Amino acid sequence: MADLAAALRAAVPGLTVLDDADVMDSYRRDQAPGLPAGLPAAVAMPEDTAQVAAAVATAAEYGAPIVVRGAGSGLAGAANAVDGCLVLSTQRMNRILSVDPAERLATVQPGVINADLRRAVAEKGLFYPPDPGSYEMCTVGGNAATNAGGMCCVKYGVTGDYVRGLEAVLADGSVLRTGGRTVKGVAGYDLTSLLVGSEGTLAVITELSLALRPAPAPPRTIVAQFGSAAAAGAAVTAVLASGAEPSILEIIDATTLRAIEEWQPLGVEAGTAAMVIAQSDSSHEEDLRLIEAACAGASEVIVADDAAESEMLMQARRLAYPALERLGATLLDDVAVPLPKLVELIEGVEAIAKDRDMTVGLFGHAGDGNMHPTVVYPHGDADAERRAFQVFDEIVALALRLGGTVTGEHGVGLLKRSWLERELGEPARRTQRAIKAALDPHDLLNPGKAIA
Amino acid sequence: MADLAAALRAAVPGLTVLDDADVMDSYRRDQAPGLPAGLPAAVAMPEDTAQVAAAVATAAEYGAPIVVRGAGSGLAGAANAVDGCLVLSTQRMNRILSVDPAERLATVQPGVINADLRRAVAEKGLFYPPDPGSYEMCTVGGNAATNAGGMCCVKYGVTGDYVRGLEAVLADGSVLRTGGRTVKGVAGYDLTSLLVGSEGTLAVITELSLALRPAPAPPRTIVAQFGSAAAAGAAVTAVLASGAEPSILEIIDATTLRAIEEWQPLGVEAGTAAMVIAQSDSSHEEDLRLIEAACAGASEVIVADDAAESEMLMQARRLAYPALERLGATLLDDVAVPLPKLVELIEGVEAIAKDRDMTVGLFGHAGDGNMHPTVVYPHGDADAERRAFQVFDEIVALALRLGGTVTGEHGVGLLKRSWLERELGEPARRTQRAIKAALDPHDLLNPGKAIA
Repeated sequence: MADLAAALRAAVPGLTVLDDADVMDSYRRDQAPGLPAGLPAAVAMPEDTAQVAAAVATAAEYGAPIVVRGAGSGLAGAANAVDGCLVLSTQRMNRILSVDPAERLATVQPGVINADLRRAVAEKGLFYPPDPGSYEMCTVGGNAATNAGGMCCVKYGVTGDYVRGLEAVLADGSVLRTGGRTVKGVAGYDLTSLLVGSEGTLAVITELSLALRPAPAPPRTIVAQFGSAAAAGAAVTAVLASGAEPSILEIIDATTLRAIEEWQPLGVEAGTAAMVIAQSDSSHEEDLRLIEAACAGASEVIVADDAAESEMLMQARRLAYPALERLGATLLDDVAVPLPKLVELIEGVEAIAKDRDMTVGLFGHAGDGNMHPTVVYPHGDADAERRAFQVFDEIVALALRLGGTVTGEHGVGLLKRSWLERELGEPARRTQRAIKAALDPHDLLNPGKAIA
Repeated sequence: MADLAAALRAAVPGLTVLDDADVMDSYRRDQAPGLPAGLPAAVAMPEDTAQVAAAVATAAEYGAPIVVRGAGSGLAGAANAVDGCLVLSTQRMNRILSVDPAERLATVQPGVINADLRRAVAEKGLFYPPDPGSYEMCTVGGNAATNAGGMCCVKYGVTGDYVRGLEAVLADGSVLRTGGRTVKGVAGYDLTSLLVGSEGTLAVITELSLALRPAPAPPRTIVAQFGSAAAAGAAVTAVLASGAEPSILEIIDATTLRAIEEWQPLGVEAGTAAMVIAQSDSSHEEDLRLIEAACAGASEVIVADDAAESEMLMQARRLAYPALERLGATLLDDVAVPLPKLVELIEGVEAIAKDRDMTVGLFGHAGDGNMHPTVVYPHGDADAERRAFQVFDEIVALALRLGGTVTGEHGVGLLKRSWLERELGEPARRTQRAIKAALDPHDLLNPGKAIA
């Protein structure tokens, strides 16, 4: 396969192609730990659609698998290389092609960093809501390929809700356009939604038309501490039923709060079993009061007076995962359950942790029922790692028992493949494979990911 | 094919099967005029998923095409029979299986009437937004199969935005489940969105999980009259930029207003070129004032004081299409353009009508850029009908030139098939055909519809 790089250089004028072993090593995996990653034959960094199309066509001629890669911030191994593959990095396709305030539409290349787009549209009084945790580094192409979520989803939905149209290169190198520029449209099958979340297994996204919203009011934060998970869960339910539209509605459990408090004391009260963090970016002051009233069962409620204090109160949520990482190696899970099952999920995770004598911190997007239970174990302890994966699996099984999903927003990648059939059933597995075979008959695009 | 009915009766216990010629005749077509409709071999009325699965398997054995039919209220011929087909009517699958206020989720059979679902969830303080014009008769299964829109879309989105999961029977009779009960979920390809809008060509929807919202405040209506389409278009833009979230934002042109006024005088001012009708169902009183302020360029603005007056002001919009139908035969179009092109579309349609000396009334969902230009011509005048179709085509071509779509919400059916490739391009056409072939290799499910 050494000559794939040479072939790409010859066939695609101007394409940056790397095949230095050291360089390629840094393009082998995303941020998911403990998953297999192959050795690429080459890494290419196209700058435009024509280069992507030519690179895909060349790799296809060589029978080389093609693994598209944004920032590599994924958490399920979807961007992990497979042996002999072409890694197609979108990092040089980072141009914002247009931002149209009248149409509330941005047209961008896939390698644009999420935060860069947010800033660019904010300058025009607009708002691009999707906000994955990694928004300062992740790309909008990767966000679309994984249908990434974030904290804003409770009010604004997920990435896919903002993808109005796509340009993508198919496995044979032809260029597909899906969707369009209109708000509504039902011309033919919804190929846009099919590509969104398909993790690079059906086509290579080369351009995105993204819907924008008017800029919201500056957010105000509320933090409430509860003596039990049940009381916190009741508050989450009450907030959602209050008529307020929180722009953030998160929860942090006792284990995670302790990890934060030991590192950067925020003054969490003793006996706090769970913290609910909510934001409102509504221009209607009463939304904040409705959220506060819904937290009546809290031992303490703090409402930010201004933007600075709002930011400070958000700290606890931002520190959640890094605080757990300080304690050891981590396995970050991503399950979602129907909202009425949220408390059962939290209590069930606590029971599993106790049962297996493992540390599991839990935090996440309470308003969506999407939680990130995080198993913590000592670095380099193989037995503990084995038990950690066991606990991880028990949590996924619990979510399924509660009518939930094995992945709310991180995606399937390699990490959750073995769970797919159990969640979706055989006909869905077969249907997904049939679609994959129809669009990518030689299984060249990110083989072995996303579907079972 | 006469024995398809007998075979169904033998193979599917309890299934109602009709093959009386008179009965079948009334199941041959939907409400789109002038499109071909074949002669079915049988009409079946299953009551549950098992009967659908068995009927599909039996038809497949016979090589008989299967055309699913809800209320037959479609406007693009998607439910028109093809020769020798089995028409699968969902009218007896009309049970609301559950409405869960905590989960904000309804589980229903596909034959449930849209308005019945709206009323059932309203009793629990909930709201099912999708509101196609035919909501008193159309079915939620048909709504999902066509991804139907309505007036509420400007605030609440289309049917597909509320379909959280589906059960559907595949072409081989197996039962597929897609999506789930969680708010977020990214396990595998988004088969839910693929089936939504596929007009019965990929699977037969047998059950839907539909997201609900809390009931909004009682709507208040504003009606504004403008001296030019440009002034009305500017008001629409201003409303959307005002920070208000109108739950309805419609427009009616001068031709349509004249037709209404001649029939049921509403007191439209002389010289009115366009009327904008907006509603707010926000609990925030200021939304109404923002909308009113955005209509500053109007010659007259009326704001309803209460629900009864709101209803009265909505009359103009409800009378739009029936008023045009009084004038003759109608060809109802359904194009959508990017919002900044709305005025160009309205003026372009007026120019086409003048040029061709034809009556074209225009009304529709201004806030989404989705318009229903309606060509009116004398009943039974073959030459006029030919010219009407010509005008219809010129309007579709205009929408495409403006960066729009050939169908915003009515679907492709038979009516817009010839336009698909022009809008989507060859790779999209090929991709859609490949998906169809993958899921329905013998082309049994609603053949000849939805895709090109």
